[in-house]
Amino acid sequence: MDQLNRYSQPLEHAIANLSLPVEPANLYDPLRYFMTLGGKRIRPVLTLLGTELFDGSFETSIPSALAVELFHNFTLIHDDIMDKAPLRRGMETVHTKWDENIAILSGDVLFVKAYQLLEQQEERHLGPLMKLFNRTAIEVCEGQQMDMDFENRTDVSIDEYLKMIRLKTSVLLGCALEMGAIVAGTDADNRSKIYAFGEHLGMAFQIQDDILDLYADPEKFGKQVGGDVLADKKTLLSLNAHKLANAVQKEQLTVLQKEGDQQRKIAIAQELFITIGAKDACIEVMNLHHNKALEALMSINGNEDIKRQLHAVAEYLLVRTV
Amino acid sequence: MDQLNRYSQPLEHAIANLSLPVEPANLYDPLRYFMTLGGKRIRPVLTLLGTELFDGSFETSIPSALAVELFHNFTLIHDDIMDKAPLRRGMETVHTKWDENIAILSGDVLFVKAYQLLEQQEERHLGPLMKLFNRTAIEVCEGQQMDMDFENRTDVSIDEYLKMIRLKTSVLLGCALEMGAIVAGTDADNRSKIYAFGEHLGMAFQIQDDILDLYADPEKFGKQVGGDVLADKKTLLSLNAHKLANAVQKEQLTVLQKEGDQQRKIAIAQELFITIGAKDACIEVMNLHHNKALEALMSINGNEDIKRQLHAVAEYLLVRTV
Repeated sequence: MDQLNRYSQPLEHAIANLSLPVEPANLYDPLRYFMTLGGKRIRPVLTLLGTELFDGSFETSIPSALAVELFHNFTLIHDDIMDKAPLRRGMETVHTKWDENIAILSGDVLFVKAYQLLEQQEERHLGPLMKLFNRTAIEVCEGQQMDMDFENRTDVSIDEYLKMIRLKTSVLLGCALEMGAIVAGTDADNRSKIYAFGEHLGMAFQIQDDILDLYADPEKFGKQVGGDVLADKKTLLSLNAHKLANAVQKEQLTVLQKEGDQQRKIAIAQELFITIGAKDACIEVMNLHHNKALEALMSINGNEDIKRQLHAVAEYLLVRTV
Repeated sequence: MDQLNRYSQPLEHAIANLSLPVEPANLYDPLRYFMTLGGKRIRPVLTLLGTELFDGSFETSIPSALAVELFHNFTLIHDDIMDKAPLRRGMETVHTKWDENIAILSGDVLFVKAYQLLEQQEERHLGPLMKLFNRTAIEVCEGQQMDMDFENRTDVSIDEYLKMIRLKTSVLLGCALEMGAIVAGTDADNRSKIYAFGEHLGMAFQIQDDILDLYADPEKFGKQVGGDVLADKKTLLSLNAHKLANAVQKEQLTVLQKEGDQQRKIAIAQELFITIGAKDACIEVMNLHHNKALEALMSINGNEDIKRQLHAVAEYLLVRTV
């Protein structure tokens, strides 16, 4: 992953140089604040790799890379309002530090800023970039709505859940990579393969996230292990548990929901989901997407060194003990 | 204005044919609901006129016209949340009929849909359309933020107020017209003139709106006359009153603010603002923009019949007794 450091400075430089206006301060201060909260910048790095993969110079796709990062941050600002989240990356969310109205409107303007960055790309790429970016933005909104709808439903199927995480999370990774590929001017076949790599990588990553939430090493995990179980959140683990449980285990799942002791609830869930086979079922789906991602990557006719780097990104994101 | 009826059917047809997906229903039902609340469709009509003015066929700019209308509706959905408005065009607002989260997210997706419509325009126009549309969208957000900021300020200047209404309202009329002109392929000079026509028309219209709020014929006015005064809202009228008042009148303005009887408060304001000269000062600025709009229109090298129709639109929007 060390090779990717070459992108850090240009990316942070470009973010610092977005030259947001000073006034109205209540519109732009929140953006300055939020954009410097950091984050791994995984998505813009994928865009730059997508360009280099097809022998373009990464500098040429920095506007697209930033557009993806700004869009991602816009969705976080609005999602935080909807989720009533007080913190993001350990810092106050925009609607907490300012207020909801300011968070709605500064999110909106950040979204326009993302589109404004695309103006800097060569005109011949603008159509394909817009088509992909628009489609993806709509999918991400649909995914967020499905996620909110799931909270009030008891009949969510595994297929629906997988569709939701694909829309909410995975498609933006595919989009980030393909935008880079568009700027490099590669053909439709390579474009769809690099998109597939990102999409499956995103699926595997999100499923891993569900598993880690319950089975991570507390020492290494950034947040409380078992948070999803305590919140009775629908995840691939819990949905698989309910699907695969026999009559006795179904009863145990009902008892689990009512358990009042937090540590006990987590410990019971950890064991029960393994006994039922839910953890293994999740690992199986995760591995399936991991393999599909690597297959797509291997089939690409592109720069072999960058392919190795993309492989390394996948291993970095996925090879955590689950 | 009857000539403009030729646009109604194609526009409503195109809106009905946006073919929004059925699912997620909580994302798309609010949009189907909101887009059919109607409204005068002034902005999309301006886009189509902007195209015909430069001898393009109006059918060619329907995607841009719809993009402007969808953008406008997106801002209304989000503004209604921020203003906690229960009604819009006599019907429940989206956040009232559904909830705030749904209003935020369906607003977001409507905004993307606006950009998606631009994909349908010829690729050679995409760059100029995007540049204008993005700049305008950012300005509209800035105007909304200024408007919200003004509520908590006591030192708003007339220049700041005029800047706010220019950003929040006027630039979108200029943008609507110029987008039509871009699709018709006219030159930069004509583009900036038709934009200026729209911008000044918007200014004059918004100032007229401020005046009508206090001086309209209650029989013809759709809402309560004097609403701004009762809410102690900053308008060009009240700002001019405070600026032009002598010592005695300043005292009368202070007394006015404390008046508890609504009808009396409105009656006193109507008379006081005239005595101070605030109404005349507003009419003067309104006429200035009205004249500038017509001057810009007259200087355009375009289709004379359409110029007459644009002139008629201006008279329709502005020639109301103030």
